[in-house]
Amino acid sequence: MQGFEPTEYQARVAGLQSAMVAEGLDALLLTTEADVRYLTGFLTRFWESPSRAWFLVLPASGKPIAVIPSIGAALMGTTWIDDIRTWRAPDLEDDGISLLTACLDEVLGGETGRVGLPAGHESNMRMPLQDFWSLQIARPNRAFVGDGNIVRAARSVKSAAEIEKIRHACAVAGRAFDRFGEILRPGTTKAELFRGYQRLALEEGADFVPYIAAGNGEWGYGDIIAPADSSEIRAGEVVMLDTGVIVDGYFADFDRNFSYGRLPRQEVRDAFAQLVEASAAGFEAARPGARACDLFAAMDQVVTGGENSADSGRFGHGLGMQLTEWPSLIPAETTELKPGMVLTLEPSIQTNSQGALLVHEENIVITNTGAAWLTSRSGPEITLVHPD
Amino acid sequence: MQGFEPTEYQARVAGLQSAMVAEGLDALLLTTEADVRYLTGFLTRFWESPSRAWFLVLPASGKPIAVIPSIGAALMGTTWIDDIRTWRAPDLEDDGISLLTACLDEVLGGETGRVGLPAGHESNMRMPLQDFWSLQIARPNRAFVGDGNIVRAARSVKSAAEIEKIRHACAVAGRAFDRFGEILRPGTTKAELFRGYQRLALEEGADFVPYIAAGNGEWGYGDIIAPADSSEIRAGEVVMLDTGVIVDGYFADFDRNFSYGRLPRQEVRDAFAQLVEASAAGFEAARPGARACDLFAAMDQVVTGGENSADSGRFGHGLGMQLTEWPSLIPAETTELKPGMVLTLEPSIQTNSQGALLVHEENIVITNTGAAWLTSRSGPEITLVHPD
Repeated sequence: MQGFEPTEYQARVAGLQSAMVAEGLDALLLTTEADVRYLTGFLTRFWESPSRAWFLVLPASGKPIAVIPSIGAALMGTTWIDDIRTWRAPDLEDDGISLLTACLDEVLGGETGRVGLPAGHESNMRMPLQDFWSLQIARPNRAFVGDGNIVRAARSVKSAAEIEKIRHACAVAGRAFDRFGEILRPGTTKAELFRGYQRLALEEGADFVPYIAAGNGEWGYGDIIAPADSSEIRAGEVVMLDTGVIVDGYFADFDRNFSYGRLPRQEVRDAFAQLVEASAAGFEAARPGARACDLFAAMDQVVTGGENSADSGRFGHGLGMQLTEWPSLIPAETTELKPGMVLTLEPSIQTNSQGALLVHEENIVITNTGAAWLTSRSGPEITLVHPD
Repeated sequence: MQGFEPTEYQARVAGLQSAMVAEGLDALLLTTEADVRYLTGFLTRFWESPSRAWFLVLPASGKPIAVIPSIGAALMGTTWIDDIRTWRAPDLEDDGISLLTACLDEVLGGETGRVGLPAGHESNMRMPLQDFWSLQIARPNRAFVGDGNIVRAARSVKSAAEIEKIRHACAVAGRAFDRFGEILRPGTTKAELFRGYQRLALEEGADFVPYIAAGNGEWGYGDIIAPADSSEIRAGEVVMLDTGVIVDGYFADFDRNFSYGRLPRQEVRDAFAQLVEASAAGFEAARPGARACDLFAAMDQVVTGGENSADSGRFGHGLGMQLTEWPSLIPAETTELKPGMVLTLEPSIQTNSQGALLVHEENIVITNTGAAWLTSRSGPEITLVHPD
């Protein structure tokens, strides 16, 4: 099925409302695509347009209230939300701010109250800063404060239905990678790989492919976020393609390393095997109660002997409605893992002193007793297509 | 060529720096993909990951300074920017805020100064709110203020090189629409149309297709932002597909209306012809010195006789590095058009009293004497594929 049953949203709302009590919040104000969708199921690519702000107010009890541009009323009306208040946006004088203020007054029973917004690491407030200032000025006795990270914490633990969606997205992206030989041939350019992989993923069932990055070289790659260019991939190079594939609003995010003609030099093959070993070590460490930093340490032990020298910053992250979600697998992140958390394991390794590196990425889910792979693991050898 | 010559960025910097003087700003702080790319050329899909903040500081004179996660250093190093300061992100203690504060101290020659951020309508600040508050607290005598909308104003006027990129994106999207008969057949579902159009656009040269929406029905559609579903398009219905197609970082954004088997009922054909007439009227009104609201009024005259009753909110908008940009074509927007502005003309019309509507969209550029079409105009008849 597309989306979720209303019970799924009811459970999410209940979870957040009890966290709001602990955090001393009288309401939550959500503004981003993922946060709004988390509580409503409102799914559209229309957020690609930055022109309009969208607001969702979660009271201390009861259902969320949508305060949104009228262009979204029909679609929001198809969700489980029934209190939908609209204005004709864009409005240069008052782009929903008095409507939102009135909604908060009603929910909070006056002009005061503590309104929480996601404000911590990896968060963003999607509304014009000036309108946020106006919101504060309109009610000087109302506190707009950080939400104590309760939204990101709630979203980090996925339901069974969410995990199935991510598993499905991983399968789609994986089937597209299985057909990589169709697009990686002598003379293939990086731009052709980008387009070709998107086409394969769409054929295999992707809704959208918003993220692709690739790197290639004899020793690995110097950059893992670069866009496409017209450079040709050569035989015996390693080429990495990293993708974010969406199916029904949930992402897969992993990469694969390939060569054509012949495998790359032995040092690169050995380094890749080490990465695969590192992700296996991360997987072994992954269980309820383990901390995010423990997974980092397990992988870093294999990759650098525990030197913590990965300049990319992290060895994985949460995954779900967004390509990357909290938490990060970094030395400082002591968050304990819980069943239902979906993570990427993404160790990287230097292959020479000129800064070339390899990256390898898989997706996992924390279970009651350990972890399970969501991706068909690659390795320990780089995948060779069209051998000479 | 990919990207632009350094002279393009120098001109953009010079334009903004003179606007900063008029606005009384000592520096600009930019945080979004489009704003950072506008001054640097930094092009990557990595912004799809919300985990890391990216900062660009534009001093009153001299080149912009990038204060960014180390994972972006290599790619930023390929641009014309040479002052690149990095930290290993994510950092839970200090995610670039002290590095950014030190950069601002250096640029502003102390702990004061007026720092402008895009804060008006259609803007967004892409960094955690808590980190923005920390930035303010660290320097209580520094003013972080709205930029007086100088960034959106600067970005709204495109250079010749930018216009060529948008023209190219429009041609790619248009060639994909020309092949619509390959994907719209008896039994085609909306989901197949979404995937099929993306595939066509990629084959025709799109880099990414981040936006698609579609509507269909005998009388038109009730929703113009809805996602795909498994419903089948029927013969004699009108089906609208609206897309945002990216080539080299610039968008085309327009829609097309099709039928298969037979044309829809006469009322719908007439309504569509009226929309085409409306966009022609918008085009006729488009010239330097005309105001955004004049284009709205010209189109609204044709569509509603001047009643201003379009609930979608607007009849077009700016277009460029983002799917939608300032200004909006609405009654209240009195901004004067300038040569180089790229706009969509997007009138909509009601076809019955049950709320069904049609939308028609083209892309234009304001020239020295009037306007020029960037899209191959559609109409006055709905495009029929596979006639019975």
